[in-house]
Amino acid sequence: MTQTGEHDWAHHYAARTRGMQASEIRELLKLLEDPGIISFAGGIPDPTLFPVAEISAAYTAALESPEKSGHALQYSVSEGYGPLRDWIVGYMGRRGVACTRDNVMIVTGSQQGLDLIGKLFVGTGDTVLVERPTYMGALQAFGPCEPNYDDLLPGSNATAASLAERAKARGGRVAFAYCVPDFANPTGVSMGEAARKKLLDLCTEMDVPLIEDAAYEALRYGGAAIPSCLELDVRRTGSIDASRVLYCGTFSKSISPGLRVGWVCGAKDPIRKLVLAKQAGDLHSATINQMVIHEVATRCYDAQVAKVCAAYRTKRDAMLAALDRHMPKGAQWTKPDGGMFVWVTLAPERDAGAMLPDAIRRERVAYVPGRAFHATGGGENTLRLNFSMPTVERIEAGIARLGKLFA
Amino acid sequence: MTQTGEHDWAHHYAARTRGMQASEIRELLKLLEDPGIISFAGGIPDPTLFPVAEISAAYTAALESPEKSGHALQYSVSEGYGPLRDWIVGYMGRRGVACTRDNVMIVTGSQQGLDLIGKLFVGTGDTVLVERPTYMGALQAFGPCEPNYDDLLPGSNATAASLAERAKARGGRVAFAYCVPDFANPTGVSMGEAARKKLLDLCTEMDVPLIEDAAYEALRYGGAAIPSCLELDVRRTGSIDASRVLYCGTFSKSISPGLRVGWVCGAKDPIRKLVLAKQAGDLHSATINQMVIHEVATRCYDAQVAKVCAAYRTKRDAMLAALDRHMPKGAQWTKPDGGMFVWVTLAPERDAGAMLPDAIRRERVAYVPGRAFHATGGGENTLRLNFSMPTVERIEAGIARLGKLFA
Repeated sequence: MTQTGEHDWAHHYAARTRGMQASEIRELLKLLEDPGIISFAGGIPDPTLFPVAEISAAYTAALESPEKSGHALQYSVSEGYGPLRDWIVGYMGRRGVACTRDNVMIVTGSQQGLDLIGKLFVGTGDTVLVERPTYMGALQAFGPCEPNYDDLLPGSNATAASLAERAKARGGRVAFAYCVPDFANPTGVSMGEAARKKLLDLCTEMDVPLIEDAAYEALRYGGAAIPSCLELDVRRTGSIDASRVLYCGTFSKSISPGLRVGWVCGAKDPIRKLVLAKQAGDLHSATINQMVIHEVATRCYDAQVAKVCAAYRTKRDAMLAALDRHMPKGAQWTKPDGGMFVWVTLAPERDAGAMLPDAIRRERVAYVPGRAFHATGGGENTLRLNFSMPTVERIEAGIARLGKLFA
Repeated sequence: MTQTGEHDWAHHYAARTRGMQASEIRELLKLLEDPGIISFAGGIPDPTLFPVAEISAAYTAALESPEKSGHALQYSVSEGYGPLRDWIVGYMGRRGVACTRDNVMIVTGSQQGLDLIGKLFVGTGDTVLVERPTYMGALQAFGPCEPNYDDLLPGSNATAASLAERAKARGGRVAFAYCVPDFANPTGVSMGEAARKKLLDLCTEMDVPLIEDAAYEALRYGGAAIPSCLELDVRRTGSIDASRVLYCGTFSKSISPGLRVGWVCGAKDPIRKLVLAKQAGDLHSATINQMVIHEVATRCYDAQVAKVCAAYRTKRDAMLAALDRHMPKGAQWTKPDGGMFVWVTLAPERDAGAMLPDAIRRERVAYVPGRAFHATGGGENTLRLNFSMPTVERIEAGIARLGKLFA
């Protein structure tokens, strides 16, 4: 089955590249169903790590009495299942964010959080500030609002004034800044504490919200934890209800993406507005899945995250070692402390998109060309490699094939 | 627990009434948790009718092998689970709509279908044609696009030309027409075949899509089935891919709303666009829930619908009989052939909204004031009564209390 991770790549890559058409890309994607092709193109968890027994027991428990099943299978409130919101309050609290149930809403995967945030904050002609490269799915989520994009570059000399000026020149204002500070999709790179503080300064000076996509935050394999932008802003402002950060969390990377349960944590006022937007969008996220996630998280969240991290650490190490062995001179790559991706930068004259058909058809290995992640163009000589899905053996074999392709 | 059915009433009623504020209404809603108060205000199924054993077995089956669980708990494609789309192809086929998998997409409840349709078709200043009264949730779903509304009145003398003219005067065009042809929420009334054909003529002349909300279509307790607008248009145009009707279906009323699984069926081209909009919105609906709905529908859809219809028929009959006994002269009400609601029209000088606090606090009975369902105002002397949720005994007792209030 072709996965969403590859799907959105197809549509998005087609939208961002002059060369290939979606049809050609879909044709290439069909080839990925051939097990002989090693794919680093997805962005999905290793299904052998799902806590199947715990999830299955939780579904059974949610339906074991008429009272429970009458709740689990019934309509429920848009803000989400109370006990799960309380669990998240505790989780955020352990991460230095003191909050209450009213600061937390459940969404149908954090993707829906991004979609609702776009609806709430982006007006006609507005500009959204994003990293370059950034998460494709966020560009898709904000897409219907047709924002302009401007860059949040580490160490860029853009100021609040210059960004506001450019936004005004394009017929709107800066709606918000969006970032993936931990083990970003696609680069695997994290923002340091100083960079996070600088970004908060910038958003404070512009008086705009900061959208913190924490999808990979739990997947740390090395290095010291860095406070979230939300934690830093709560420290600074003294209260979550005074914070400008909206933190988008998810259970997709830790427990299971197939249940579609994520959350948004932030100040009461925007959360209340986002709940109304969610009600209009899908009434609420699946009741029984919220109960199951609550049960599984309560029973074994930390052990599950430890299990996932141990497995992905081994795969990351295997990929980095294989890259050392097989990549040609002039190629560089990130060495992520967590997440699911390594980002490769080839010599400036190489075009990873142009080489993709040969990669898949001749070398039988797939990746995502980096250009797809660039809201404002560029990145032709870059590519994203996923290490969470393939086995260690296939990582070694696949990187060897890439080495041959790029030699 | 306060249910969404009552929740959206609170927000919406507050938005549409000058008198009461959401806070007062929320206060009243809190009272509904008191079991001594008989509520006809919800719009939710009777949880004792959920096929719990079948659903529980289906969750267990979806997780019984690594291959199945690896799919059930994983990301999946935005258009939905193939076997479920195939089941829906068969279901629509039995209803006179020949279609293929490409004509069907899965959504997170049909509410999401309405939300995506609004995003796709409503431009700035456009007008949406709705019945008066109409489904509140549709007004919420289209709300973010800030459309103007115009009326689709049975036997109105509005013409394609006059409607287009009015839409133009308001700075846009007619985006589409929206209707709930079977046992409509809130009135319980169905459109006859002639009215459906007339509506299709109107939409054809305006060359706009017709959005058919078939949420209650399966819940028929009497009278002969009427062809859906989609079936009529397919007969007329000769092919679903030539049809202008987008049919929004759901498993919420037949199997369970808590799983959040519905569908949209229509021409390939708009379905493909809606799938891209869904991908941006929440990537996909919960994989495991789609597998469970497929399993339960395959095993026992017809028997389950027969069970639900038998139970609701008894409740409808009890409510109609109680209304006969207890309503004052001058009150009138609909006699629905299906669905979940009876619509009461009081004498013109009565205001059901103004009487609500007394109804709940003094008579300890609740309903939804009809004004909330009027996109363009009016309906002060009307109210919606739900008969799917309360028991026959509580229906009798509650209608007696209403009779006292309205006497």
